[in-house]
Amino acid sequence: MDELLAEVLAEIEPHRGRGRVADYIPALARVDPNRFGIAFAGRDGMVHGAGDCDEPFSIQSISKVFMLQLALDKVGAKLWDKVGREPSGSAFNSIVQLESERGIPRNPLINAGAMVVTDHLIGNGTMGEALESLLGLLRAESRDERVHIDEEVAHSEARTGSRNRALAWFMKSFGTLSNDVETVLEGYFHQCAVAMSCRQLARAALFLAFDGRDPETGRQVTAWHRARRINSVMMLCGHYDNSGEFAFRVGLPGKSGVGGGILAIVPGEGAIAVWSPGLNAAGTSETGALALEMLVEKTRWSVFV
Amino acid sequence: MDELLAEVLAEIEPHRGRGRVADYIPALARVDPNRFGIAFAGRDGMVHGAGDCDEPFSIQSISKVFMLQLALDKVGAKLWDKVGREPSGSAFNSIVQLESERGIPRNPLINAGAMVVTDHLIGNGTMGEALESLLGLLRAESRDERVHIDEEVAHSEARTGSRNRALAWFMKSFGTLSNDVETVLEGYFHQCAVAMSCRQLARAALFLAFDGRDPETGRQVTAWHRARRINSVMMLCGHYDNSGEFAFRVGLPGKSGVGGGILAIVPGEGAIAVWSPGLNAAGTSETGALALEMLVEKTRWSVFV
Amino acid sequence: MDELLAEVLAEIEPHRGRGRVADYIPALARVDPNRFGIAFAGRDGMVHGAGDCDEPFSIQSISKVFMLQLALDKVGAKLWDKVGREPSGSAFNSIVQLESERGIPRNPLINAGAMVVTDHLIGNGTMGEALESLLGLLRAESRDERVHIDEEVAHSEARTGSRNRALAWFMKSFGTLSNDVETVLEGYFHQCAVAMSCRQLARAALFLAFDGRDPETGRQVTAWHRARRINSVMMLCGHYDNSGEFAFRVGLPGKSGVGGGILAIVPGEGAIAVWSPGLNAAGTSETGALALEMLVEKTRWSVFV
Amino acid sequence: MDELLAEVLAEIEPHRGRGRVADYIPALARVDPNRFGIAFAGRDGMVHGAGDCDEPFSIQSISKVFMLQLALDKVGAKLWDKVGREPSGSAFNSIVQLESERGIPRNPLINAGAMVVTDHLIGNGTMGEALESLLGLLRAESRDERVHIDEEVAHSEARTGSRNRALAWFMKSFGTLSNDVETVLEGYFHQCAVAMSCRQLARAALFLAFDGRDPETGRQVTAWHRARRINSVMMLCGHYDNSGEFAFRVGLPGKSGVGGGILAIVPGEGAIAVWSPGLNAAGTSETGALALEMLVEKTRWSVFV
Repeated sequence: MDELLAEVLAEIEPHRGRGRVADYIPALARVDPNRFGIAFAGRDGMVHGAGDCDEPFSIQSISKVFMLQLALDKVGAKLWDKVGREPSGSAFNSIVQLESERGIPRNPLINAGAMVVTDHLIGNGTMGEALESLLGLLRAESRDERVHIDEEVAHSEARTGSRNRALAWFMKSFGTLSNDVETVLEGYFHQCAVAMSCRQLARAALFLAFDGRDPETGRQVTAWHRARRINSVMMLCGHYDNSGEFAFRVGLPGKSGVGGGILAIVPGEGAIAVWSPGLNAAGTSETGALALEMLVEKTRWSVFV
Repeated sequence: MDELLAEVLAEIEPHRGRGRVADYIPALARVDPNRFGIAFAGRDGMVHGAGDCDEPFSIQSISKVFMLQLALDKVGAKLWDKVGREPSGSAFNSIVQLESERGIPRNPLINAGAMVVTDHLIGNGTMGEALESLLGLLRAESRDERVHIDEEVAHSEARTGSRNRALAWFMKSFGTLSNDVETVLEGYFHQCAVAMSCRQLARAALFLAFDGRDPETGRQVTAWHRARRINSVMMLCGHYDNSGEFAFRVGLPGKSGVGGGILAIVPGEGAIAVWSPGLNAAGTSETGALALEMLVEKTRWSVFV
Repeated sequence: MDELLAEVLAEIEPHRGRGRVADYIPALARVDPNRFGIAFAGRDGMVHGAGDCDEPFSIQSISKVFMLQLALDKVGAKLWDKVGREPSGSAFNSIVQLESERGIPRNPLINAGAMVVTDHLIGNGTMGEALESLLGLLRAESRDERVHIDEEVAHSEARTGSRNRALAWFMKSFGTLSNDVETVLEGYFHQCAVAMSCRQLARAALFLAFDGRDPETGRQVTAWHRARRINSVMMLCGHYDNSGEFAFRVGLPGKSGVGGGILAIVPGEGAIAVWSPGLNAAGTSETGALALEMLVEKTRWSVFV
Repeated sequence: MDELLAEVLAEIEPHRGRGRVADYIPALARVDPNRFGIAFAGRDGMVHGAGDCDEPFSIQSISKVFMLQLALDKVGAKLWDKVGREPSGSAFNSIVQLESERGIPRNPLINAGAMVVTDHLIGNGTMGEALESLLGLLRAESRDERVHIDEEVAHSEARTGSRNRALAWFMKSFGTLSNDVETVLEGYFHQCAVAMSCRQLARAALFLAFDGRDPETGRQVTAWHRARRINSVMMLCGHYDNSGEFAFRVGLPGKSGVGGGILAIVPGEGAIAVWSPGLNAAGTSETGALALEMLVEKTRWSVFV
């Protein structure tokens, strides 16, 4: 595996720096576009890495996957009364669909849907408790207590988040959200601001590749059918209106974040995290997606063969 | 396998007749809603079946999958200049997306996209030749010369196809179609009218589960990456705005038809065809989808675990 | 004129109580649906009235007309950089059009557009000053210092205004609003809460029927071309997606409010205010519109003959 | 009046040739962009003209106004079951609204609506009879037998009319059209191809300015309330998504055609026809609209003052 990752690292060399770094907040804008890291966590719990695989980056929307699992573990299938599980066919922050479907977001991996998930994870508790459960999961499964929320990023998100505010108030007007809008938004902005390295991220998501079980310890992190379903939602909806393209080229359940990270799950094999800040038009890391495509070509890990 | 299928047959018994039989043409409307058949073709090329698995039914949109393969084999990647590969997020015959995306359909498995595929498969040849290549493929791979186009169904489709005519003319106005509209429509209506049994269908699609190769003869029916990609398109787009639900519940690449058939591919294992005429709101067989869910629960064939 | 109004009062008798009283805030919900008032102000500045024409009601969106005039007087044509003047073809609070037109509302008489107007009228000053200029205009032109803002209504609007909050944040995300969102919303909610009687309202709007001039005093309240253009915006956009119907039946520039009031301008003749709380699906007073239709039938005041 | 028109002719001189000549059919594309004509028909039936006011041009969508009157005279208010009377808020040939409103076009002056009107005017008769009734009206009211349908234009329209075909089939799929699609389209394309001069057009529409009565002969061409309502539809919907702008600047009921003509009605005064081939983005003659704005500025004919 170390060799494979080294090969990928060598092959992406001419493609470093491609795409456009997110610049809507300073903390993202100042990241060096030439950074690239990749890590793979396998059945034995070991993590292999290459490039900048130990550098923490803002995982942004990738945390939506873990929030979804936690919310489902907490409230069960009734979450699906307030959020769908169909691809949206539109951008991550589109409001049109919300109007025609009366305040119910298409899926939990677009912004509006992730707010619904946040609202459920808060439940009758506090935002702090919800974030603690997220950090608890990520630290335990990554085997690393350094996983944290970057407060500067969280504050920047809040300051520039007019459209997310619009989405939240719009859902509130349809009764989709239970908690007050500012609480949900604060929770949402904070979960976007989790900082992790590729190594930490790949390890943290490993249970999704093994029926919800941590393959090293055998601990059932979440129910097997839940892991399966989260993977299906990632496959169908993990990259907004670029999900079809990602499935076509990579063929793995995945989730992108505008920080340049991508998490991909190889059922029965392991979890991959890749990071490179330059994004394509849909907000997916360009060089990151290319690296995954290369790795899958070598390993034939696509779920479609 | 015969036992498994027999179990499924027994378990779906209380669910026979669920859903609503398509009634926009007489040939579909008069089908008995209680029919149910299922078949599985495996690595050895053998087909196992249960229930009404030898009864021919109108495979309707399922043929879009084979048409896609043939058109890609003929014209290659330039097909993707005229049709996307993203989920549509809307119904099979929606025209709204076509307007905002200037005549380029979202994917080849919605009606408009299948017309684009048909247009490419006709190319500079005739509609008859295109249909011959479809029948040739289906007969060869199903090992059954009885596979045919039901002319009564084709004529009925043509008579009632106002909305499909609108889609075709709309694309023509954007220059998406090369052949004349009536030719493309005739080809489209005919490919919808292929009649096959579950047995024939499962066997015919077997190469999609084995990297494009017929596992019995070793013949490469289509390139391995093409099979992989067709499977990804089926997973993301195979059930219109119900694709997420199907992935969530079944977890296999699949394609539904309003005749009540569903084709599902189990990469590395085989192909499943199921048939039961009653449809849900998105046009997918209700009891058929339930049967697939049961079978996948027993076999853990979901690609997501 | 008194006779005419008395006739109308008699003829609408069997239609009292039609429509549905707005119930999203208590102050509107508790109004007696059988109230009906009508008033006409003519060239001599005299006001004729019938029914409950001295009863103050919440004029709601009718104040958008006066806000528009004040904002145009303040900032001139550059207002049109931030708000269009085309009919929206959709409901008063639709957000879809805002997305496709990148945060620029269709016209100043839908909610989003009125927020843009409010933002301009506030300008570098305070919300209080903006509201003072509105009340100043209304009191001066109605010749009645009792015109006021109902604070209970303003507070109720603010409490229930999630969708309006969504509209405001959405525009903020496109840079359409200069002032902070809460200030604009407060101004917006307060201008909706103006309480006036039919008599006061008809008199206050009289200058719009006479080239912007108060016909009694000769004072030019606004430029003649501005009055003409405000009337055109009322004609095309004054009743949301019911504007065509109102033009078809009544044929006068008008503006409705969910409090049940309608203001109509008869160029060269005078201004009519009518009030009856029951609304049609588009939020226009049913009996009020009927009364205007009757009056126009008698007077042939439609601008279209 | 001759003087006024001469003034306008002189003032538009520097603006000749502005806009973009329609080029989707050869017969329109080859028209000299510098042509300009204007005519006014008054209460006495006399027609005053300036510039190229005797040159026949393709009146295109302007004929929709006369078709609407004829259809209403034939079938009465039941026409409104199949077509609305609200502004569309979108382009003349948009299909999106048709989908969301299930095949009922917004108003009779967009293409889809005009097809509904054509369908009703054909009724149980033939397309030829419908066109005869249109030519009969136009010849009688223009006092000129030379008014005719340009067959070259009609054939070109038919050849290039893919989008209009799509609209027609789409409505057919909802059951909006009674006659067969090709018949309705032929009728529609032919009525677009009427050739008239400004003089003929102004005279032909004179009854719309006088309560439906030809003011010269006193003959009631259509009922007074019908004339009023047709004027209201022209005001709200006569220029597609540019109707608000036209009302704002000109303030008269009007109808534009892509041949560069505009018809405007001055209730109680007369009818104006103007022609200049260069169009703005919404398909309205740029110099033509400017000329009307100038004339209305001089005469204060806006209905809003």
